[in-house]
Amino acid sequence: MSSIFSKIINGEIDSYKIAEDDKHIAFLDAMPLVKGHTLVVPKKETDLIFDMEAEDYKDLWAFTQDIAKQIKKAIPCKRVGIAVVGLEVPHAHIHLVPLNSIEDLNFKNVRLIFSADEYKEIQQSIINA
Amino acid sequence: MSSIFSKIINGEIDSYKIAEDDKHIAFLDAMPLVKGHTLVVPKKETDLIFDMEAEDYKDLWAFTQDIAKQIKKAIPCKRVGIAVVGLEVPHAHIHLVPLNSIEDLNFKNVRLIFSADEYKEIQQSIINA
Repeated sequence: MSSIFSKIINGEIDSYKIAEDDKHIAFLDAMPLVKGHTLVVPKKETDLIFDMEAEDYKDLWAFTQDIAKQIKKAIPCKRVGIAVVGLEVPHAHIHLVPLNSIEDLNFKNVRLIFSADEYKEIQQSIINA
Repeated sequence: MSSIFSKIINGEIDSYKIAEDDKHIAFLDAMPLVKGHTLVVPKKETDLIFDMEAEDYKDLWAFTQDIAKQIKKAIPCKRVGIAVVGLEVPHAHIHLVPLNSIEDLNFKNVRLIFSADEYKEIQQSIINA
């Protein structure tokens, strides 16, 4: 069965997409820790990020660097943090989280939910950055 | 003034080193979230990881992949998580944290402190993996 991320990649599930190339996609986390929280996902399903082929893994991080720079321009924050956890979805993914304090990266926090208009505004601000 | 990580790189401060090459070093976090918590640091000081030169940044992640695989072999865990925060030390660094639950990546948790013998045992188990 394909993962929820593969369903997003295939367009079976909607997302607020930030960027896409032939090997990767980035989209807003639907239940973000903070405004601008974005997921970067390789299109090829691999459970553990460190099990990816070395070249695919480096390409994923290169793609992530570009996305993070856009987020930093668009979302007021001290820096863009990274988290890779993956205990819930067995398809490698990188969390990019605009940080103002360490508490912003606490995955036990209650997740935010924005309106569709708010998600679109955040999406556009990152795309335009 | 050089960062605490540069002092470790220069040998002014001791650490439990896991691996080193000309551009990177990996050593045990002195106040780990969990057993096996390791820091990977580029020798060249840059505050924000995403501000690194593209090639240096990719090399850092490649080095990190190798270290993470060693940790996974040495430390019982479901997976090795990644966190990049950097609010305290302005020298880019990657946390590699053996995870069994999301709570293991909560930086608000009380940090562990091991005896010197315990650190050495953890260090050797990862080096030998």
